[in-house]
Amino acid sequence: MRTQVAIIGSGPAGLLLGQLLHQAGIDSVILERRGRDYVLARIRAGVLEQGTVGLIDKIGAGARLQAEGLKHDGFDLLFGGLRHRIALDRATGGGHVTVYGQTEVTRDLMDQRATQNGQTVFAAEDVALHDFDRDKPFVSYVVNGVPKRLDCDVIAGCDGYHGVSRASVAESAITSFERIYPFGWLGLLADVPPVSHELIYAGGERGFALCSMRSATRSRYYVQCALDQRVEDWSDERFWDELRRRLDPATAEALVTGPSIEKSIAPLRSFVAEPMRFGRLFLAGDAAHIVPPTGAKGLNLAASDVHYLSQALIEFFVERSGAGIDAYSAKALARIWKAERFSWWLTSLMHHFPENGAFAQRMQRAELDYLVSSDHAMAALAENYVGLPY
Amino acid sequence: MRTQVAIIGSGPAGLLLGQLLHQAGIDSVILERRGRDYVLARIRAGVLEQGTVGLIDKIGAGARLQAEGLKHDGFDLLFGGLRHRIALDRATGGGHVTVYGQTEVTRDLMDQRATQNGQTVFAAEDVALHDFDRDKPFVSYVVNGVPKRLDCDVIAGCDGYHGVSRASVAESAITSFERIYPFGWLGLLADVPPVSHELIYAGGERGFALCSMRSATRSRYYVQCALDQRVEDWSDERFWDELRRRLDPATAEALVTGPSIEKSIAPLRSFVAEPMRFGRLFLAGDAAHIVPPTGAKGLNLAASDVHYLSQALIEFFVERSGAGIDAYSAKALARIWKAERFSWWLTSLMHHFPENGAFAQRMQRAELDYLVSSDHAMAALAENYVGLPY
Repeated sequence: MRTQVAIIGSGPAGLLLGQLLHQAGIDSVILERRGRDYVLARIRAGVLEQGTVGLIDKIGAGARLQAEGLKHDGFDLLFGGLRHRIALDRATGGGHVTVYGQTEVTRDLMDQRATQNGQTVFAAEDVALHDFDRDKPFVSYVVNGVPKRLDCDVIAGCDGYHGVSRASVAESAITSFERIYPFGWLGLLADVPPVSHELIYAGGERGFALCSMRSATRSRYYVQCALDQRVEDWSDERFWDELRRRLDPATAEALVTGPSIEKSIAPLRSFVAEPMRFGRLFLAGDAAHIVPPTGAKGLNLAASDVHYLSQALIEFFVERSGAGIDAYSAKALARIWKAERFSWWLTSLMHHFPENGAFAQRMQRAELDYLVSSDHAMAALAENYVGLPY
Repeated sequence: MRTQVAIIGSGPAGLLLGQLLHQAGIDSVILERRGRDYVLARIRAGVLEQGTVGLIDKIGAGARLQAEGLKHDGFDLLFGGLRHRIALDRATGGGHVTVYGQTEVTRDLMDQRATQNGQTVFAAEDVALHDFDRDKPFVSYVVNGVPKRLDCDVIAGCDGYHGVSRASVAESAITSFERIYPFGWLGLLADVPPVSHELIYAGGERGFALCSMRSATRSRYYVQCALDQRVEDWSDERFWDELRRRLDPATAEALVTGPSIEKSIAPLRSFVAEPMRFGRLFLAGDAAHIVPPTGAKGLNLAASDVHYLSQALIEFFVERSGAGIDAYSAKALARIWKAERFSWWLTSLMHHFPENGAFAQRMQRAELDYLVSSDHAMAALAENYVGLPY
């Protein structure tokens, strides 16, 4: 089999890239290790920047998102027993985010790809990348026990942090930057109406909590937990109790609880691998970088990577110029580091750090007090939250 | 001897308080452990917020400051080999700072006090505070071997971090917050024209540097140094060489060097003691809190404390109301914590921290890159730099 771009991974990054290339007449094949249903069952964040929504609209996959997505032009910071609203629209001249589950984005992109007869190979085992240091790379894989080979001009590694793409590069060619946070997020999904129509980020000595939602009838809540916690130790009741304690009395009172649909613990990590190009292999999204979930930048960063990469590949295939692919890594990383900084900062600001002494705790509180007292500081938060320009 | 307010310490905080009280017809006596010449020889920062200048003007001691002070409506951040200007005026609607040495402020306030026959006892030894938990406190001290007693209604502790005032309070009554930074500032004063007409704050892997000035012909430069460094190991030549390496080539080239007038190493510390009132004893300035010198908030915080304290004491003596003195500590601390946060943040942003790993170093750089790319972030920096409102 032959294609122009072999895309490794059928998450939002790979799917979005495939559609952007398709629009420009560039052919791609997606190789996905898992089955379609597995990919669609993954529960992830769901706060989309305007730029991300713009890309989905651009490829014509935005109809359901526009109909069902919840437009949010603000969110609350809760600390010291008070909720403080951050007005995204006022601070950014009309900016907002759209709440729409990553699962839904993936579904819409898959459906779109299907209508265009875009080729995706699910359950592709033993994927291996070859010769990406030369002009004619190829990918080998196995389907139903049968070895296959995909010849291509370019490989796009969109297969996440644990994927084969970054792992295929010589360690000496990569510089990694990492911060592991000393806590995780325990998340619970339930078919109950959200406690507030906007998100609430709550900080305090008991730890961080986030009140989020997927729709008007499905809520997603999180509480910061120690890394040694096991999800089995958290009954729904214990979760709801702990969440209530991290909210102000009125919000705790208003909380509607119900049986969990899903409950899981995720660690928090900041990670960047440099560069993002290795000959004919290009990394995008979680394959190259991870942000902690605070501020919901992960999917949005994948989208901006794919925006830059699609432009570079269109230059390469359509205009026969290598300038775009030569600039891709630096261009993408400039925006990635800003989003890494924002995610690290918001994580540092809102979580309880066991190792923090009394002075550091007061600095956290002083920063929150300053933040909600300063239009400039709130505007800086807002412009990062809605997404810095591409 | 009897007075209404016994002021401990003849630095800018004590002197400014004395004059503000004098204007309201309230009598004070200042007790100073050192001699007048010693106080006047102390070299300290010299970047005044508008609020500080306003207080000095208000008591009629601002003539020389207005004539000789240098109005700065911007400063430079230097990193990655480039200077980036922070426009204070644009970001804050005309805000600025005034460069005028603390020594000069002290001199002007002393001269003003002398014209008003305000009483100051220099070389007051063995100062001890008594009965400030009752209505009739007094201060004992020794002058030329002769024991003295100053009866008063209120004691104002303006005698700095090492002074007797805070040390007179039971340890159990104070909560302290502290951060010691793992480096110091090596400062050099020289009669050479400053390398730039505005301040330059430089960050980088060799460590922080600050290009500052006292006047158009007197420069003050600093370089971050390890805590184990001794000033004897730093010849002028070594200092200038190190400073040049921390600047961009054009600025290093333009640097005019000359023999040092003064050279010293100061450690960096963040410190806050709560509360600031203990019965009839009120702390103000460095007696209650210390900031690292980055951003020059120390003298300005002393001024805002004294502003709040003078208002509270005027309420107490003139209006016979205790509401002001009851609110003093909370009111002053709210602003102090914001300034502590700013000083800690700017210190963290601009210095090289030996313990920082690669990720933390990149966060520092990403924050600088974001800062100079965002009008909102620069405005937040600027509003803190010119001074948050009283």
